[in-house]
Amino acid sequence: MTFVLSQSNYGKSEVRLVKVVRTEGRHELSDVTVDVMLEGDFAAAHNEGDNRALLATDTMRNAVYVLAAKHDVAQLEAFGRALVEHFVVAGPTVERVRIQLVEHPWARLGEHEHAFQRGNGGDRVAIVSGDGHSVRFEAGIEGLELLRTTGSGWSGFVRDELTTLPETDDRILATALSARWSYAEGGIDYGAAWHAARDAILESFGDHFSPSAQFTLRRMGRAVLKAVEAIDRVHLSLPNRHHLLYDLSRFGLENPNEVFHATSEPYGLIEGTVAREQ
Amino acid sequence: MTFVLSQSNYGKSEVRLVKVVRTEGRHELSDVTVDVMLEGDFAAAHNEGDNRALLATDTMRNAVYVLAAKHDVAQLEAFGRALVEHFVVAGPTVERVRIQLVEHPWARLGEHEHAFQRGNGGDRVAIVSGDGHSVRFEAGIEGLELLRTTGSGWSGFVRDELTTLPETDDRILATALSARWSYAEGGIDYGAAWHAARDAILESFGDHFSPSAQFTLRRMGRAVLKAVEAIDRVHLSLPNRHHLLYDLSRFGLENPNEVFHATSEPYGLIEGTVAREQ
Amino acid sequence: MTFVLSQSNYGKSEVRLVKVVRTEGRHELSDVTVDVMLEGDFAAAHNEGDNRALLATDTMRNAVYVLAAKHDVAQLEAFGRALVEHFVVAGPTVERVRIQLVEHPWARLGEHEHAFQRGNGGDRVAIVSGDGHSVRFEAGIEGLELLRTTGSGWSGFVRDELTTLPETDDRILATALSARWSYAEGGIDYGAAWHAARDAILESFGDHFSPSAQFTLRRMGRAVLKAVEAIDRVHLSLPNRHHLLYDLSRFGLENPNEVFHATSEPYGLIEGTVAREQ
Amino acid sequence: MTFVLSQSNYGKSEVRLVKVVRTEGRHELSDVTVDVMLEGDFAAAHNEGDNRALLATDTMRNAVYVLAAKHDVAQLEAFGRALVEHFVVAGPTVERVRIQLVEHPWARLGEHEHAFQRGNGGDRVAIVSGDGHSVRFEAGIEGLELLRTTGSGWSGFVRDELTTLPETDDRILATALSARWSYAEGGIDYGAAWHAARDAILESFGDHFSPSAQFTLRRMGRAVLKAVEAIDRVHLSLPNRHHLLYDLSRFGLENPNEVFHATSEPYGLIEGTVAREQ
Repeated sequence: MTFVLSQSNYGKSEVRLVKVVRTEGRHELSDVTVDVMLEGDFAAAHNEGDNRALLATDTMRNAVYVLAAKHDVAQLEAFGRALVEHFVVAGPTVERVRIQLVEHPWARLGEHEHAFQRGNGGDRVAIVSGDGHSVRFEAGIEGLELLRTTGSGWSGFVRDELTTLPETDDRILATALSARWSYAEGGIDYGAAWHAARDAILESFGDHFSPSAQFTLRRMGRAVLKAVEAIDRVHLSLPNRHHLLYDLSRFGLENPNEVFHATSEPYGLIEGTVAREQ
Repeated sequence: MTFVLSQSNYGKSEVRLVKVVRTEGRHELSDVTVDVMLEGDFAAAHNEGDNRALLATDTMRNAVYVLAAKHDVAQLEAFGRALVEHFVVAGPTVERVRIQLVEHPWARLGEHEHAFQRGNGGDRVAIVSGDGHSVRFEAGIEGLELLRTTGSGWSGFVRDELTTLPETDDRILATALSARWSYAEGGIDYGAAWHAARDAILESFGDHFSPSAQFTLRRMGRAVLKAVEAIDRVHLSLPNRHHLLYDLSRFGLENPNEVFHATSEPYGLIEGTVAREQ
Repeated sequence: MTFVLSQSNYGKSEVRLVKVVRTEGRHELSDVTVDVMLEGDFAAAHNEGDNRALLATDTMRNAVYVLAAKHDVAQLEAFGRALVEHFVVAGPTVERVRIQLVEHPWARLGEHEHAFQRGNGGDRVAIVSGDGHSVRFEAGIEGLELLRTTGSGWSGFVRDELTTLPETDDRILATALSARWSYAEGGIDYGAAWHAARDAILESFGDHFSPSAQFTLRRMGRAVLKAVEAIDRVHLSLPNRHHLLYDLSRFGLENPNEVFHATSEPYGLIEGTVAREQ
Repeated sequence: MTFVLSQSNYGKSEVRLVKVVRTEGRHELSDVTVDVMLEGDFAAAHNEGDNRALLATDTMRNAVYVLAAKHDVAQLEAFGRALVEHFVVAGPTVERVRIQLVEHPWARLGEHEHAFQRGNGGDRVAIVSGDGHSVRFEAGIEGLELLRTTGSGWSGFVRDELTTLPETDDRILATALSARWSYAEGGIDYGAAWHAARDAILESFGDHFSPSAQFTLRRMGRAVLKAVEAIDRVHLSLPNRHHLLYDLSRFGLENPNEVFHATSEPYGLIEGTVAREQ
């Protein structure tokens, strides 16, 4: 019996890059966490301890900062593409490179030249992968926390012998949305596309009565596709952060959907992909 | 040799309360984490297993939700005071109660009646303590993340044989500020005071050249005292989130304060209290 | 242009289950986090707000506890299989069920009947998935923290213009290993297999000079396959927790691989799958 | 109105130090997180931007690693004392130094010379503070996770109109214990004292029927004082990690203290200090 290495990859994770563009009167700030992942033939290292085909992950780190000096990091996708193209060449046996960039938001303090506080609205994600011939762009959002205090219900679901949850036509709906989408075409303004996609999610989150997280998920997905022509499919992941109506009847009090107990676990998890019909 | 219980306290921590005020056309949302802590004579429980003087911490949880139904939770200090007054009476041997309320920010989506996303600007803290006779109010901020891309230096410090850090007149200054303050007088509009204090911090963070986190700390503290008459002292805690200029000279590149490596640990920690002179 | 739901799934995550088997003289304790995930045709809910095919995720939670009462939870795989079989039937349009169980270790205090402290050695993972016809078992380890103070080097790697890392034949190698494996055959003693696999990893981690994390990864994978006949492939993920030799030469001191600065980010990430040759 | 700096301190937190003692055949490993905190007169920096009395926190980091090279880090208290003595001299206006050391446990793999896995039993804490004349030693434990599956009850507590919790004479008692103690005398074997104190906690946790966390707290405190003559008082903090009996009666099942829902928040928090009677 012999054993084979059937797959391998390696890279550098959580490279914490901050780049400042020092325009007179208005500094711009990019705060990005970069993950580099290389795929290819690394069998000699695994099998024989021969490292000649391996880049040190420390070298990958250097590359991130060096390319950050040469490129506009605010253009996440273009910067990611530059990293892909670099590593496809730099690694002797690399066949495929995947760069993930997660941008953390900062909000300018008024019109200050160079002072910021942490922003909200979720992190911006860009994932660029390529093999030296073609390149693929994905994008997304992490940690977009949303909450509706009404306009959401949950009824008509299966009632079997293990069902104890009452139906409701008025509950809190809360989530920390994660989204990933792919582009049908390249060469677009990715930053504008990202903001339009997020705006569509924010807008559609509250524009309807929600009979379920599932319904709202599809509606938000559709809104993204309607808003951004270049996006061909969007995957949404909605953890359901349950807010339980606190039972005050035990104390002779009514609770007309006002006082809730927020829970962190367990949580429902609703996921789905919405795509353009071919 | 005998052993004595020289001090004890107990309570319920991380009671996650969300209250909705369902005004027609504009719901208001309070998302608060409540900690209840009781001090007093609990020796019988500790020494003899006699629980007759103890409230169940589960009962404390019930009390938080019941009082939330009866009070305006958005008035954190008044709600905290009601909880203090409740527990001073409810616990047979309670001598002192400390209620900590941490409000997590939500930002309305446009002018939507009831849809929100997570806000920024740090959590609002209120700490109310009392013994049935007097009550004391403290307030503060947690997790206010701030960053300046320039206008900050660090030079003229001690250079001994263990010093390797170069001096700089241009660095990134970044922190996640925590503040606590006490009020000289009660009966004020605590919400307005809190917002004025935070605004003063945000304003003063960027209004000067910072020769050190220490200098900026005192300047922010002074700004809080200037802005809010009722605050008599403010304690500030500034973790120094170091952003290290990446050494690109090894690659024949200049790095004119543009490309930084953000680090999470170790970090400097600068703390101080600014008070009105008596 | 129309939009379609091209894929969906939903479930309950982080159901925190603790089961005690109260054998006289020796209680046994299972502390497990359960994730339930259902796949199938949920289009009516997404598209029309028709929930008739949906189980409430709260019902899934009930099912976990009810089945825990009826089954031996310590047999993670059998318990998972029971959950799969339950949900395939309970969900009207469910086509596939995936149950993930993560068991957290507890160590008995001496020979005490019922007192424990947290154990070490990583969490035990079991993943059971099925469609009502066939069932598939995967297993693994999460968070197995390992460290060697010597016997590890890193040299002979690519040196390009971005490489600054020196070669070394003596470094600290540290990781928090994650493993996943699949079984070629079912009906085995999964608990014994898991412990044998972990023992093989612990044994092989230190039984050789490590020229790279890659080499050690394959060696540990091979050891798992050698130790457990029923495992046909194992995937290993090794974050490289870098321990940097602190430069003491600046202070006139030698540092013969004794004093290190442990870092949390960035970190290398080395992954690979070792399989039996067909 | 003028404003004064009424208190200040600063330092370096989370210095991650790993030291290896490379004894032939048996390497020893110390994995310690060090916090340095200086108090004194730093007003010139705060008020005037005059940094001449300030040590860079980066210099503090260097000092930790340099002193680690010269001292036996495994002797946490002695190492902490050396750091105190260093900083009292190094900082021109330093009046008091506080060093906190938190050691993370590693367990040797069998009798291997140099391979380890993460250990259990909680982190070891040592806090050394001094002003150049006297030095004070405190010690403790962080994150010692304990659980009893029976032998614990909770009854006889106050029943008021807000009490809904039923009494029980059989529940799970679980905690993540934190302890801090001070020594009446110095110059002892602090490592032996720490292990004896922890052993006393582990032993006493399960040696009695627990009518409350309060009772068990005092019993564990007393056990520490009995076991270690040099400890004069011990403070214990017991978060009560509630395990709720899952209500299976709704499904026609009994639940004889077997199936529990583990919760993370809210949690009870029981704290107290046990001291030798003067």
